[in-house]
This record gives sequence, structure tokens and C-alpha cells, in this order.
Amino acid sequence: MRIRCFLIYFLLIISCATRHGMMGKVLRFIERTQLPVYLTPMAKGDIDERHPQFHGIFAGNCSTESVQKEVYNADLILSVGSMNSDFNTGGFTYRLSQKKTIEFHTYHTKIFYAVYDKVDMRELLPDLTEHWPTNIIRQYNGTQNNIEPVILDAKHQTEIVHEYLWHKLPDFIPEDSIVVAETGTSEFGIFNMRAPKGVTFLTQILWGSIGYSVGAALVGKDDNRRVFVLVGDGSFQLVCQEISSMLRFKTNIVIILLNNDGYTIEKFIHEPDRAYNNIQMWRYHNSFEYFGDGLKQNRDQAITGFAGQVKTREEFEKAMAQVLNETEKIHFIEVVMLAMDAPKSLVLTIEGTREYKKREQEEHE
Amino acid sequence: MRIRCFLIYFLLIISCATRHGMMGKVLRFIERTQLPVYLTPMAKGDIDERHPQFHGIFAGNCSTESVQKEVYNADLILSVGSMNSDFNTGGFTYRLSQKKTIEFHTYHTKIFYAVYDKVDMRELLPDLTEHWPTNIIRQYNGTQNNIEPVILDAKHQTEIVHEYLWHKLPDFIPEDSIVVAETGTSEFGIFNMRAPKGVTFLTQILWGSIGYSVGAALVGKDDNRRVFVLVGDGSFQLVCQEISSMLRFKTNIVIILLNNDGYTIEKFIHEPDRAYNNIQMWRYHNSFEYFGDGLKQNRDQAITGFAGQVKTREEFEKAMAQVLNETEKIHFIEVVMLAMDAPKSLVLTIEGTREYKKREQEEHE
Repeated sequence: MRIRCFLIYFLLIISCATRHGMMGKVLRFIERTQLPVYLTPMAKGDIDERHPQFHGIFAGNCSTESVQKEVYNADLILSVGSMNSDFNTGGFTYRLSQKKTIEFHTYHTKIFYAVYDKVDMRELLPDLTEHWPTNIIRQYNGTQNNIEPVILDAKHQTEIVHEYLWHKLPDFIPEDSIVVAETGTSEFGIFNMRAPKGVTFLTQILWGSIGYSVGAALVGKDDNRRVFVLVGDGSFQLVCQEISSMLRFKTNIVIILLNNDGYTIEKFIHEPDRAYNNIQMWRYHNSFEYFGDGLKQNRDQAITGFAGQVKTREEFEKAMAQVLNETEKIHFIEVVMLAMDAPKSLVLTIEGTREYKKREQEEHE
Repeated sequence: MRIRCFLIYFLLIISCATRHGMMGKVLRFIERTQLPVYLTPMAKGDIDERHPQFHGIFAGNCSTESVQKEVYNADLILSVGSMNSDFNTGGFTYRLSQKKTIEFHTYHTKIFYAVYDKVDMRELLPDLTEHWPTNIIRQYNGTQNNIEPVILDAKHQTEIVHEYLWHKLPDFIPEDSIVVAETGTSEFGIFNMRAPKGVTFLTQILWGSIGYSVGAALVGKDDNRRVFVLVGDGSFQLVCQEISSMLRFKTNIVIILLNNDGYTIEKFIHEPDRAYNNIQMWRYHNSFEYFGDGLKQNRDQAITGFAGQVKTREEFEKAMAQVLNETEKIHFIEVVMLAMDAPKSLVLTIEGTREYKKREQEEHE
């Protein structure tokens, strides 16, 4: 076999990097080998998307067409810390050949069909970096960063549709912020979103625990890094009381609540008309008021900035400009969206999962 | 030993009655034997408090003085389904002699110091009823119902203090209602409160899980029985979103929120000034509005009645009159109380628990 091309994509780097201090080792490996790099959704943000070797997010069918083409045409794939959960694989639409894949894990290494127990990537990767044969290093000069340009639907010029939102949002997220994206719509929205430099992305992609983001935003608070929470109305209902804590602990968190009237992701999975997916509508944008903003008993709480609904792009952009301007304040932006509009990556993942389950069922019968 | 007097008190009758259909058997036993009856807090409401043999609630130091005197002076105590948890025993202030106590349980019977395994009260109690010696039956003619008259403090003539609240509340609870009392202040408040006929009391006295009442109110909903929830502000914060479900499922629940600004019970246990017991103040009485009352998306939800704060006895009584009058509506009454006012039974239980722990510690040292 003549080695035509190397591809590396990363999975679960977040865990490895934080638990084992792996990110430095991984970066040295990347830069030594000059291989093109793909991240899975879980690792979004772990490598600066402006890095010359960064090529895009790979999650099976959810990836852009060019990413899929490059990955599937590779002769050899090096996979670091893979975690093939449903949401991390675009609904099990990975079609990577075992014959071409080497997997690096914390407690074993897998080369094609053979498993080498106790061969640990924390030791193996630095060794590989050191002994990488010079004659196969080729300065990478392919296309950089495969985030597809967004073609906005002319039909919805003023409405806040997903294609618009995820394209526009990064303009308002300063470098080095923390973005906590809730399971479901928000998590899928950020997959192919442009990541500003130094932004850390937190998602609950492994267990898919809804409601995680609102509480996590508090834990993730860092005095010098602004926290943005992206959360759907359905998930927000589980943990709304964390807004009270955000006020009490004087945070300057920015809550962006995507109100698409119910469990959109579940509607896509299980049919839109099931009663349990159509939830009670709340006055979300009154959250600060309900949870005690301005009450004299709550001495010394967060200073509130924007707190309201936005229904048009103009309103959204105006509110976000205020957010950017008033950095010391906490803000709550309720973005009113169409009920059955969803990020393309979400729709594709669900289609993938559905087909996977159908195949599984057929195999059982 | 000459048998001077028999006393029976009941513990955990609620569980036994619902799980094993025991209440009928217990009542037949009571009426056959003509013994005076005491209930523990867990069994509150299981026997009509107007029953001629009902004598009061026994929970160690939390009981009224006359109840304590009668119980401790008994020569023999028959205890049915006892559960000696902290809150059920007035903070472990039971001082019942083992030498005088026969305990009936589901899987064993204990006579003084001897345990008889597999002797099950479901079989034993009917047998005892049948074979109870006629010569020891004495028509009971002692004082009935030892609920102490309330002497209201003249200093607080208009304020809603606990002594007033628990004395007045039963006037507004119709017969056969369901009262769900939250762990903490509310649960202790109902101990020595007069129980209207046929009222079922639900509490989380065993595990002391706070927040239980608000969700339980929904499960306990019965078309022909009105549900009253008594909940403190601290517990309410854990499960506020259940108000949304109450609206959505068109209930006519009456929520009485006792706003005494923080975790009063914890303040009594651990000192009042700990920061974690002083919680964020919310606009509780805006709950219906926040959780979507009147929004056009929420077709066909509960009709809301009273929704506001009451700070004086007059306001409270006026609101409760509206509640009684508008039976088809859901109501939310936020009762503003003094932060460190508490039912006497609560204060006594905490003192009891503290002494118990002190003794335990001394024994360990």
C-alpha cells in the first residue's frame, strides 16, 4: 500500500486533555506530523479553528460534504480517544473502515483488527511524535477549515432561522469566552459554527442529559472569561431556578434561550404531534424579575442588562450589541424561532439514528 | 401486674393501610378494645380526629403536655407499625419503656424484649380482635381529643404568626380534602392542627425529602377532592416548575406558600446566620404569570383565581374565602411570615434532636 494521505480526527479530547493533560502532547504530534486534523463534536474548540491544519468537524452524515469526502478517501486514519456515542457520530453514520483505522485510547491501542491492551496513548503519542519518520512528513497545503459558507434563504429575510443564527452568533462571542451549549438544538447548532479563538465549548454530548447547560454555566464561571449559555425552552424548564443562583452569585452570564415552542429534537425523532413534546409556554424573558431581580431582600446581586424577547434579526443584533457593550451585566435573550426549524446537522443526525435503528431491528428479525 | 390502663398509638399506619389494606382491621381492633388512640405524625388523618377514642398526636416532646402525661403513665402500650425516624419521634424524644411496649409489625412482633419473627400484624391483629377478653373491655370515657387550645399572642394581633396560622387554617379546609404538607415548617405545623373530617394528609416525614409536596400535589389530584399544598419558600425553589404542570393539567390546587425568607428549619438546626440558609428571594406570587397563565399558546389550561401576597390576618382570611368560593380555580397564596417564627412542635423536635446527638457524641467519646 502506498500511503497517499494521512488523516487524524479527534474524539473525546476534552476528557483526555483535562484529565490527563493530553492536549499539549496531541498538539506536538499534530505539528510534528503535519497531518490534516478533524475534530468530532465533543472536541469542538480544543484546537483553534484557525490552526492551518484544522479541517473541520467530522460527525458522519452531519459533516459538510467536503469533510466527508476527505475523511472517507483517506488511506489511513489515526483516531485519538474516540467515543462513538450517538450524538458524536452523527447518529451512527460513521462509515470508517476498520482496515484503515488506528485508534489511540487511554488503556489500549487498536490497530485495524488487533487490540493491544495497556498500550496507553499518554505514553505512545509522545513516542510516536519523537520517532515519526521524517521522510513521510509533507508540509500540509490543502484547503484550510471546511466550514461551509452559509447561503441564507431569501424567503426568511427578517426571521431568526437556524442557518442565520449559527452563522451570525460568532460575531458576538468574544475570544476566550466559554460557550455552554445545551443538548439538542444548541449542541447541533455549534457543530459547524465558526469558533472564535480560544473559546471553550461545553456540551453534554455523551449522556445527552438535558438541562445540564444552565447549571454548568455557573460552574464554568471564570472571572476573566464571559460565559454564554445556549439553551432550548424544553431543557430550560428543568433547571430554570439556576437563574436565581446566577443573580445571587453576581455573574455576568449571557443566557440565550432558543424558544421554538417545545422539544424540537424529540419532535424530529418521534413525530411532531405527540402531546408530551408540546410543552407549556412560559414567560421566559421575565426570568430575572421572577427570580428576584430588584427585590430589596436580595442585597448585592448581579446587575441585569437586556431581558426580553427578540423576534427579528435586527432585534437580535441590537440585543447582542448591548450584551457586548455591557460586559459587567447579566443578560437574558429569548430568541423566538419557528417550531420546526432546526440546524441541518440535527436533522441529519436524527435521520442517521433512525436508519441505524431500522437496520438493527431488521437484523434482529 | 394489675392492668390499670391500655394505650395504643399508631405509627406508619398510612403505609400499612394503603399497602396492606390494614386500616379497616385496625379500626375494628380499636372499636372492639375501646382503647384510647394516639397517632404519630406519619399517621395524621388516618383516624378521624372526631372519633371518640382519638386522643391526640404523640411525638415525644412535640406532643401536648396532656398527651405526654397519658402516654408515659400507661402500663402497657400497643404500638402498630412503628417507625421511629427523627421527625416521627419528635427528634428521638420518645421515652417509652421497652418493658411496657408491644410492637406490631408487618414481618415480626415484639413483646417487651422478645422478637417473634414472621408473626405478621395483618394476621395477628384480626385474631386479637376476635379473641380480645371481654372482661378487660371498658367503655372509654376519658377526655377526647387532646389538641390544646391556642392562646394567641396579643403582641402580634395582625401579623400571620404560626400559632395563628395552624389554628385558623382548618376553618378553610373542606372535609375530605387532601393536604400535602412539605417537610419542615408545614409538616410540623399540621402535627397538632385540628384535622377536618376525612382529610388525607400527605407528608415526606420519613426521608424528609424537601420539594416533595409540590410534585406530590399533582399526583394526589383527585377530581372530587380538593388538594391544598403547604410549602415553604426554600422547598418550593427546588420544584417551582410543577406550577407549570398544575396549570397545564387544569388543576384546582390551592398552593399556600409560607414565605419566611429562607430555610427556617435549618436555621434552627445549624444557627441562623449561615449564608446557605439565607436564600434568594423570589416573586413567588407571580408564579402563575411566569409559568404561562394567559399566554395564547397555552390553550385550555387551569383557570387562575387568587395569586398574590398576604401579610395580615385579614388579607389571609379574605384570600382563603375566595379559595373556598372559587372551587374550580387554581390559587396561589404567598403568606409572608416572620423569618424566625416557627411552629412550637418544630422548635421542640430540633431541641430534641440536638440533645440526642449530643448524648450520642458523649457516648462515643
